[in-house]
Amino acid sequence: MNPSPEALLRQQDEQWMREAIQLAHSALYITSPNPRVACLIVRDGRVVGKGCTQAVGQDHAEVQAIKDAKARVPAEALRGATFYVTLEPCSHYGRTPPCVDAVIACQPARVVIAMRDPNPLVAGRSITKMQQAGIEVRSGILAEEALALNPGFISRMVTKRPWLRSKIACSMDAKVALADGESKWITAAAARADGQHWRARSCVVLTGIGTVLADDPLLNVRAVETPRQPIRAVIDRRFIIDEKAALFNGGPVWLFVEDRALTAAEQQKEARLVQEKNARLIKIPLSDRHGASEALDLRAVMAYLADNEINEVHLEAGPRLNAAFLEANLMDEVLMYMAPKIIGPGREAFALSPLQRLSEARQMVFFEQQLVGTDIRLSARDAQRWQAMLAAISE
Amino acid sequence: MNPSPEALLRQQDEQWMREAIQLAHSALYITSPNPRVACLIVRDGRVVGKGCTQAVGQDHAEVQAIKDAKARVPAEALRGATFYVTLEPCSHYGRTPPCVDAVIACQPARVVIAMRDPNPLVAGRSITKMQQAGIEVRSGILAEEALALNPGFISRMVTKRPWLRSKIACSMDAKVALADGESKWITAAAARADGQHWRARSCVVLTGIGTVLADDPLLNVRAVETPRQPIRAVIDRRFIIDEKAALFNGGPVWLFVEDRALTAAEQQKEARLVQEKNARLIKIPLSDRHGASEALDLRAVMAYLADNEINEVHLEAGPRLNAAFLEANLMDEVLMYMAPKIIGPGREAFALSPLQRLSEARQMVFFEQQLVGTDIRLSARDAQRWQAMLAAISE
Repeated sequence: MNPSPEALLRQQDEQWMREAIQLAHSALYITSPNPRVACLIVRDGRVVGKGCTQAVGQDHAEVQAIKDAKARVPAEALRGATFYVTLEPCSHYGRTPPCVDAVIACQPARVVIAMRDPNPLVAGRSITKMQQAGIEVRSGILAEEALALNPGFISRMVTKRPWLRSKIACSMDAKVALADGESKWITAAAARADGQHWRARSCVVLTGIGTVLADDPLLNVRAVETPRQPIRAVIDRRFIIDEKAALFNGGPVWLFVEDRALTAAEQQKEARLVQEKNARLIKIPLSDRHGASEALDLRAVMAYLADNEINEVHLEAGPRLNAAFLEANLMDEVLMYMAPKIIGPGREAFALSPLQRLSEARQMVFFEQQLVGTDIRLSARDAQRWQAMLAAISE
Repeated sequence: MNPSPEALLRQQDEQWMREAIQLAHSALYITSPNPRVACLIVRDGRVVGKGCTQAVGQDHAEVQAIKDAKARVPAEALRGATFYVTLEPCSHYGRTPPCVDAVIACQPARVVIAMRDPNPLVAGRSITKMQQAGIEVRSGILAEEALALNPGFISRMVTKRPWLRSKIACSMDAKVALADGESKWITAAAARADGQHWRARSCVVLTGIGTVLADDPLLNVRAVETPRQPIRAVIDRRFIIDEKAALFNGGPVWLFVEDRALTAAEQQKEARLVQEKNARLIKIPLSDRHGASEALDLRAVMAYLADNEINEVHLEAGPRLNAAFLEANLMDEVLMYMAPKIIGPGREAFALSPLQRLSEARQMVFFEQQLVGTDIRLSARDAQRWQAMLAAISE
């Protein structure tokens, strides 16, 4: 039996959308805080224009693609064409004018979008506007792949918090260090280099004061070409970070400290860090979840980050902070590099308290596994969170 | 540039050999203690006969393929044909007559073999014999894939010990059970079913007395069609196994106990187990490696198994026995099913003593990773052992 015309069209739409999503990956390190979006303009079975969202304040994908097309074909050729866009075009004046008007001005016959923009400023308005202009609009083609492009942006729009990805490097028996702390290096050079790509795509690289004191890391992106460095951030409740810490190297550093009156000495330290080190102090209340342990309220940290347009948070933390994020149900994704070695007694990735029953174990879903050099990279995510986000963009 | 005739021929040889290796996989559960071997007879670009080694005492692959061919084409058609065999044909009278004579009688033009048979009774003799009969012989086509078919047989021939594969089911943080021992179930049904295939291909399923006491397992192959059940074996130094243990269900059970004089009661227990339960007691000296811990000498256990034609050992053991095999450098392969859950404090897969330096960690090599249902299956092996075996068959 031959496929129906509808099935063929859907197949074609998915094929072009796959190409658009591929293209959007080239903007992975660039667009923050905007989502990564790509647009293909297709006419008579071939691409006549394509574009990706650029750095913030510059052209969005649709405008790029239209400019590209106009340089290649006469403007009339766009009339009747099909636009493939990985996200619903924006309908509001932000840092740039609304893309939907630029699209409508081209008078395309069809616009195919992978997913609705959950941004409350858009949220289907552009779809309606295009339909009112007589354009056939199809939405929901490869929506999950499009979500995977922008989990942070979607999470921020839908749930007012960023997408948190915790990077862990461990042995086959899941040890991140020997008991004495030796951890250089458990994984091999290829895995460590791969980890830089995940830093590069994030808006914030986050760690705890324990890691800063122990390793004095830079936490910047190295050995990957990127036009943009993520902000570095440290959970430092007692504000004990050393002013000479290596991560104060010019780029912005956000310090999350306990919300209390600072001493005079602390106020001077803050002033120096702000004026000389590009740092910012953010006061966060203590969590009422942990009674005795008096930790910062990590939900408030996440809310602050979302309010400040942070999409993806890349966490590289010690066992206690990892456990705290997990126990607060804030660990959206685990990026685990596992080396083919067996260590025995050593430090765990998560310093959790014991479960009473196996059925209480935190359940995630593996969605990618890949050999990176001699190590394995495993990606797992919180299935409930993901399904909730998928549902929000599919409404 | 076009490939040379030599390159084309090699490509063709690899293609047919790949098909032969694929075919040999269908004999995975059948041939023990013989190796799994397949043979294709190719004439004018098509297969005219094929066969696999059958159960012990029955036809080897070459004889099967010749019979198959003779049922399909006139006997003269084999003259000038090419035989593809995944292992050098045998040259000795074992339970069946030498295959090499049956091959030579067909007067093929070429015989392509994946690897020399390291069996000292063969070891290149068949290659020489075929060459003396005017047949062109090519050896070493996809040798590593052919080795992967029969790691146990090759290991037994080359190093006089079986290939030991340890199956581990754990969480993302490598816990095999909660601290109180609850381990049913960490992995999901699909992974547990997959594990049965690995039992089915083994000659022996081995465990420790601790696991028998705690779980009273059957350790047989279930839910997989197999013509043959592996032998079950237990490391039970003090001979304390319960005569009512579930694994005494008719199939042979081997018990490895300490080499000492048995008490009268123990002698009676042994007699009952031998006569009524199909059991066998094997006395093994204590290891001088572990001083105080007084464990059985696991190298002696492996030597006994090799002497008794055991190729692959499937280990399903607790943390202490796993650690003992690892520390004795006898863990050739780890088959790890990892569930996407995080448990926190619990039992480790390996109860090892602490390392002084990270550089002392046991180093393996990942060679396969695959999603099985919702769990990940990771395969790692001892790289040195593998390279030594590869070298032995490539000489």
